[in-house]
Amino acid sequence: MLSRVLGATTRSNFTSKHKLAQASRRTYAQVTSPPNFVRIVEVGPRDGLQNEKSVISTETKIELIERLQKAGLSIIEAGSFVSPKWVPQMAGTSEVLTGIQQLPNVRYPVLVPNMKGLESLLELLHSSSNRNPPLTNEIAIFTAASESFSKANTNKSIADSLDTLAKVTERALEEGLLVRGYISVVDTCPFEGRTDPVKVRDVAEKLKEMGCYEISLGDTVGTAVPATVTNLINEVTKRVYISQLAGHFHDTFGMATANVIAAVNSGIRVIDSSVAGLGGCPYSPGATGNVATEDINHALTGAGFETGINTELLVETGAWISSQLSRRNESRAGVAWLAKRERERRKREGTAKL
Amino acid sequence: MLSRVLGATTRSNFTSKHKLAQASRRTYAQVTSPPNFVRIVEVGPRDGLQNEKSVISTETKIELIERLQKAGLSIIEAGSFVSPKWVPQMAGTSEVLTGIQQLPNVRYPVLVPNMKGLESLLELLHSSSNRNPPLTNEIAIFTAASESFSKANTNKSIADSLDTLAKVTERALEEGLLVRGYISVVDTCPFEGRTDPVKVRDVAEKLKEMGCYEISLGDTVGTAVPATVTNLINEVTKRVYISQLAGHFHDTFGMATANVIAAVNSGIRVIDSSVAGLGGCPYSPGATGNVATEDINHALTGAGFETGINTELLVETGAWISSQLSRRNESRAGVAWLAKRERERRKREGTAKL
Repeated sequence: MLSRVLGATTRSNFTSKHKLAQASRRTYAQVTSPPNFVRIVEVGPRDGLQNEKSVISTETKIELIERLQKAGLSIIEAGSFVSPKWVPQMAGTSEVLTGIQQLPNVRYPVLVPNMKGLESLLELLHSSSNRNPPLTNEIAIFTAASESFSKANTNKSIADSLDTLAKVTERALEEGLLVRGYISVVDTCPFEGRTDPVKVRDVAEKLKEMGCYEISLGDTVGTAVPATVTNLINEVTKRVYISQLAGHFHDTFGMATANVIAAVNSGIRVIDSSVAGLGGCPYSPGATGNVATEDINHALTGAGFETGINTELLVETGAWISSQLSRRNESRAGVAWLAKRERERRKREGTAKL
Repeated sequence: MLSRVLGATTRSNFTSKHKLAQASRRTYAQVTSPPNFVRIVEVGPRDGLQNEKSVISTETKIELIERLQKAGLSIIEAGSFVSPKWVPQMAGTSEVLTGIQQLPNVRYPVLVPNMKGLESLLELLHSSSNRNPPLTNEIAIFTAASESFSKANTNKSIADSLDTLAKVTERALEEGLLVRGYISVVDTCPFEGRTDPVKVRDVAEKLKEMGCYEISLGDTVGTAVPATVTNLINEVTKRVYISQLAGHFHDTFGMATANVIAAVNSGIRVIDSSVAGLGGCPYSPGATGNVATEDINHALTGAGFETGINTELLVETGAWISSQLSRRNESRAGVAWLAKRERERRKREGTAKL
């Protein structure tokens, strides 16, 4: 719906900055859903694939995104504009954006670490200004809640990182793009241990002030448990509305579905996840393990929430991409669902042994 | 503590039925713990191993139990007295019970499906009446909350199954044994779909009336979600005290830690689990997948509960038994914990790359 609004606005003149910015601002208020609707932000094609060992062809990335949108995902991170020297898996994001058969009610945010990344994206958007709707209308930016992690990840202090991001955000907003902010290591930092929720609150407030429409709280290390999730949300919501927050959990210690339930019980209605649990292998030290979209979808619909997702298509997508990457499907719900369907098929064919 | 009490009582005369029965009854009231203590009932050596494809040597079973008790587990299902024709993995339970270096504060319940199983156990106990404490002072019995599952599992209706179990329980209590009751398929049945919580409540009440000191609610199919867990507990506690209930969750759909949190939030303080998630492979249709003890321990301690468990010894046990069975360690918390320790070791040795 959002991109439809943007699309309609941009039909006349994509480069009209003022108009676009107005359009994107207007849409903030339009993002209203029933109280039991939880929006899942699919990060598999970006956060997931960038942490996979295999390098994936552009065609496969495009098919993954097209399958996900067919399954009902309405926000799909399509890639990132980071240097391919750093993250070779993310080469070709321009080709991915150009190649997708875009649907009007789907948004395709891309990760942008700095002004250089944003310039690359804007170059693409301007050179494809005949596209309607535009290839994307949203970027994601990231910082951290601990100094050591920020230094290690971006070679900047948190303050310096926020300075950079403020400029990126300002420019993006001028260009009519939505900006989503990630905060990493909100529960613990691998270098500093426990993260102070007050620190997360302060960073979240800064991201909100610079113009992020939503701030995703990332438990990068996967150490959060429901109690720490609730505690964190209580602290952050002193400065940022709950409706501006998203939860981003890694399943490293098997707590992600429990944490999602805690987050929605605290009022959060946006959860990031990755189909088939793409991203990080639980067998290697330092594993990250995004929570699987299939598991989150199962947990949320079981808790009486709506997600707008077609379970069968989602689960099939998880199985398909796992096989493309020759990796284990890390979604428990996905594997169980497929096993159940197989049992039922055999039963129908009279060969079942239950 | 319980077996210590029983041990002291039985020192004089194991076959004094009256005395034993009195002792075991007296202990019900003695099982008091601080309100934030959650007792984990380790079912890996029984419910776990009986569903593994490999047949495990008696020595390995004994070592598994001894490692678990060293890690602080105080109730460890040691095996079952079912016919080895049905469950070859459970052959040798007598040898296991006899072989363990028993600790005085640990209980070793064994599963007993019927009077024949109980008689076999009693024969062993009587023939080893010089053992002090006795080899075990507790049995577990099982029934189901759906007629079709009961038929498939025991070839009996629920009513007939309860009749049998009432006799088994009566006899066991006379012999001074504690009796724990399992109810299977409390959330859904593979044949009948959703289970009516009222049905579970009625079966639980029957088990309580026949003398079970505790009733474990088993989500055999793994379909439960926090909302259905809470709903079920609300219904069952209309007839059975919350202190008489335990939660037994399978992680088939990845919901088990979330369900455990829901259960303890409803007041449950006893949770069954299986080290390394032993039991059922998530890759085969019909997979069961017990929730891993390591994951439950992580979730509970993270939520501010005490479990009395030494995490390092528990995690090492999970890794060890997984390697013995040449299977993947299904505990996410266990794998993550080991990876973290390995990273820290490398860091200390100056070879770390974080």
